[in-house]
Amino acid sequence: MKKKILELLQNCQDFISGQEISEKFGVSRTAVWKAIRQLEAEGYVIEAVRNKGYRLKEEPDLLTEEQLQKYLETDWAGQHLVVFDETDSTNNQAKRLAEEGAEHGLLVLSDCQTSGKGRRGRSWDSKAGEGIFMTLLLKPDIQPGNASMLTLVMALAVRAGIEDVVGIDTQIKWPNDIVCDGKKVCGILTEMSAQIDYINYIVIGVGINVSNEIFPEEVAATATSLYLLTGVRISRAKLAAKIMAEFEKYYALYLKTQDLSGLMNEYNSHLINRGRSVRVLDPRQEYTGVAQGINQSGELLVQTEDGTAHVSSGEVSVRGVYGYV
Amino acid sequence: MKKKILELLQNCQDFISGQEISEKFGVSRTAVWKAIRQLEAEGYVIEAVRNKGYRLKEEPDLLTEEQLQKYLETDWAGQHLVVFDETDSTNNQAKRLAEEGAEHGLLVLSDCQTSGKGRRGRSWDSKAGEGIFMTLLLKPDIQPGNASMLTLVMALAVRAGIEDVVGIDTQIKWPNDIVCDGKKVCGILTEMSAQIDYINYIVIGVGINVSNEIFPEEVAATATSLYLLTGVRISRAKLAAKIMAEFEKYYALYLKTQDLSGLMNEYNSHLINRGRSVRVLDPRQEYTGVAQGINQSGELLVQTEDGTAHVSSGEVSVRGVYGYV
Repeated sequence: MKKKILELLQNCQDFISGQEISEKFGVSRTAVWKAIRQLEAEGYVIEAVRNKGYRLKEEPDLLTEEQLQKYLETDWAGQHLVVFDETDSTNNQAKRLAEEGAEHGLLVLSDCQTSGKGRRGRSWDSKAGEGIFMTLLLKPDIQPGNASMLTLVMALAVRAGIEDVVGIDTQIKWPNDIVCDGKKVCGILTEMSAQIDYINYIVIGVGINVSNEIFPEEVAATATSLYLLTGVRISRAKLAAKIMAEFEKYYALYLKTQDLSGLMNEYNSHLINRGRSVRVLDPRQEYTGVAQGINQSGELLVQTEDGTAHVSSGEVSVRGVYGYV
Repeated sequence: MKKKILELLQNCQDFISGQEISEKFGVSRTAVWKAIRQLEAEGYVIEAVRNKGYRLKEEPDLLTEEQLQKYLETDWAGQHLVVFDETDSTNNQAKRLAEEGAEHGLLVLSDCQTSGKGRRGRSWDSKAGEGIFMTLLLKPDIQPGNASMLTLVMALAVRAGIEDVVGIDTQIKWPNDIVCDGKKVCGILTEMSAQIDYINYIVIGVGINVSNEIFPEEVAATATSLYLLTGVRISRAKLAAKIMAEFEKYYALYLKTQDLSGLMNEYNSHLINRGRSVRVLDPRQEYTGVAQGINQSGELLVQTEDGTAHVSSGEVSVRGVYGYV
């Protein structure tokens, strides 16, 4: 009943009276009132005006399997969904499910994470309702050494998904961040379980700051959210589903050559580091140069005074010389 | 009581009467008889002769924590032990324990495996009492691309351990088998969980055919056991412990340079492929050449008619042109 009443309200532009609802579904006025209360408890804002009836004013941004399936238009990515209200980290959950035999294309989402992970064991702030925390499981027949390129493929998908759903142009900070106005909106964490010449599985975790209104002091200077950038609330389910559709598209191009030759031009056109001074934190020797863009292996080409260095994400970190990016 | 009686029997060269045992420990003759029955059930062969008493004739080859600790002389490798009577695979168990926070140096052993694993998802025959099935957990601060070298480090340790405990000279078939008389005695399966530039953990699984007397038809031509090679029964615990000690030694040399430059000469001196024709099963193009030995990265150098190819274990498999090796 609750679901039917919700659908009715969603399809009505104007008020609809309790009497009308009760007659339409053949239930008592009390039953209608109870359903309205339940919807409000779930976060729906419903206007109730005497002699006019009810009107749906605001829908909550739910990250549920139902919401996701409403938007999901993919062949395989996310067609098997596991959604948590809370979990330690979606990467950890995806890895556990992979060890238990979960298949290529599984998408794990959670409304919040208790131990969200960034690169190299750093943590990632993951409060309920504020972000998209999701992990896609892949079991590709590629060499372990090529797995790092998939981070870049996902970066392209996230950037395109945000452009489509939110309507803003974001940039990629090589290799795994999405930034806008010089601040980080999204981080991507790829992990794999591999034998020497065989990938057991890969998980690609995506954390997007969606509706955060404020950030902890220690990251306030470098982090932002889609809400802070636009002032608009968006559906996390819609964005997550769109990113899956974009990933499928880019992934197919990646698989054709098993490298980034078909994607590097697009990647480079969105690369914020391009043409900028970067400091390469190579453990053997730090150096500074100008980032030229990636090559087909996803390495960042950095022009130094004495030549061009190929910077592999497996080797070093890159920092902008001026500010965060 | 059982344990005390066992110790007494182990320290007696000659027969000892039931009366003497019962008086020594202040227990009834029936209690002594019960303990003897229990020991027999565990695999101890105890001679019982009227008017003389009991004598320990043969000890079972137990793979228990107690037995292992008796032989283990390492600083860290295997100092934390988890021993199973049966498990799916010691690699899987080690990976599970690693995800739960187990530390560098954990050694997982099992008397048998229900889903023993070989490379690329192949299975590995793992019956109770017949082999050593063990997995060492490592959390090294090295690049993921260097992890494959650890298979070669373990191969050196297994070869040296067998030479020391069993007294026979085995060879290494690049990259991950130990062979003798042209048949496989041991396989090594290295797996890792990694981020792009960061190793979460590595597990190195070792399967050694110790006391097998017969092999299934499909592998009989290519597999052998230490017992079939020597006719002698050895203690699995002793061999496993010795391999850990050898691994510690070779691993320290590996860590010095984070490559095999300090180990390649020794590796090459035991390399059965050396100087032999090998067929390189490169997915791009198969070719034949003569194996020269490994370089400091653990790649097999193969001399072809038109030059020398560097064969990485991350790329291809190698087959002997004549027979298994």
